Amino acid sequence: MTVSEIDRLIHLLARLPGLGPRSARRAVLQMLKKRDTLMLPLATALQQTAQAVRACTLCGNLDTTEICAVCRDPKRDQSVLCVVEDVADLWAIERSGAFKGRYHVLGGTLSALDGRGPAQLNIAALLDRLRPGDDGTSAVHEVILALSATVDGQTTGHYIAERLADSGLAVTRLAHGVPVGGELDYLDDGTLTAALKARRPA
Amino acid sequence: MTVSEIDRLIHLLARLPGLGPRSARRAVLQMLKKRDTLMLPLATALQQTAQAVRACTLCGNLDTTEICAVCRDPKRDQSVLCVVEDVADLWAIERSGAFKGRYHVLGGTLSALDGRGPAQLNIAALLDRLRPGDDGTSAVHEVILALSATVDGQTTGHYIAERLADSGLAVTRLAHGVPVGGELDYLDDGTLTAALKARRPA
Repeated sequence: MTVSEIDRLIHLLARLPGLGPRSARRAVLQMLKKRDTLMLPLATALQQTAQAVRACTLCGNLDTTEICAVCRDPKRDQSVLCVVEDVADLWAIERSGAFKGRYHVLGGTLSALDGRGPAQLNIAALLDRLRPGDDGTSAVHEVILALSATVDGQTTGHYIAERLADSGLAVTRLAHGVPVGGELDYLDDGTLTAALKARRPA
Repeated sequence: MTVSEIDRLIHLLARLPGLGPRSARRAVLQMLKKRDTLMLPLATALQQTAQAVRACTLCGNLDTTEICAVCRDPKRDQSVLCVVEDVADLWAIERSGAFKGRYHVLGGTLSALDGRGPAQLNIAALLDRLRPGDDGTSAVHEVILALSATVDGQTTGHYIAERLADSGLAVTRLAHGVPVGGELDYLDDGTLTAALKARRPA
């Protein structure tokens, strides 16, 4: 393989999550067979998306407008704010259709290992959004911490909860428990313990 | 998710082999975080490759020139021609470094199920290449059928071998046997039978 264009393309594609050098190679060959229906449209879509899409200045969601569609939607409940790590999590919650409030994207979690402190995350902007207005009341009444059930996710949740302790806001987190469709037999001890502790009347 | 640019990009990416809608979504988010180092270079590389790379008019390999680097290389053995299904197979053999002749890419296999006959493949061009010159001799002395050990691959091999039966050329195929590093225990019966039949002095 001495075609530098193809090598370069494989190298770039292999950096995408879920693709290695082998599948990148297969993808390039597939695309070269479908230049006009796949390869060139993909190039254009990449360019257009890179240019048009930006982070919402309010919540951090991705959209083509300065304020994203979720933040602009007057029908969404302004009194509940859902804090997520990443835009992917926001999309996942939107797909569930179970939440009608607004979001705040942190852009990651606190991580001692990776050296990410509060300053690296979108936390100052979150506290700003929650600060009471001149009339002493905040539009938001509840903050839902929809963070991963990992050590870093929980640390981040604790940190934010602490910062909001005196705010008078209700701070909640997602329930731990048995995943819907999950078999008890295959569950880890931590989840089982959490599900037992949080048991509810049947 | 209502951002049409992102939706379109995910839809296109999900058509690549090895990527589904879920991993395409992750890839797009990853790329939006690395616009200048990954997303835009990828768009450019796709465009450039789509424009610059074409099939070698002689063998069907991909290169930026009309005649590919392998066919142009005077050091390669002109007397051996390796017939492969696809450019991916050609690359795989090149990576092994075990072959110093030239190639012919069929562009697929015969397939009764998919309705691919000899006319859909690059077989006429192959027979043309092997036809003796005015002096009655062909530059090629051996044709290696490096085709998949599938029903379609073997059918294609048989078909080509039959067409070349009267040509006086040596027509060979790849050996079947135990893959290097493979454990007997995990081998299928067909491979084990083939390896036993083709046993050689130790």
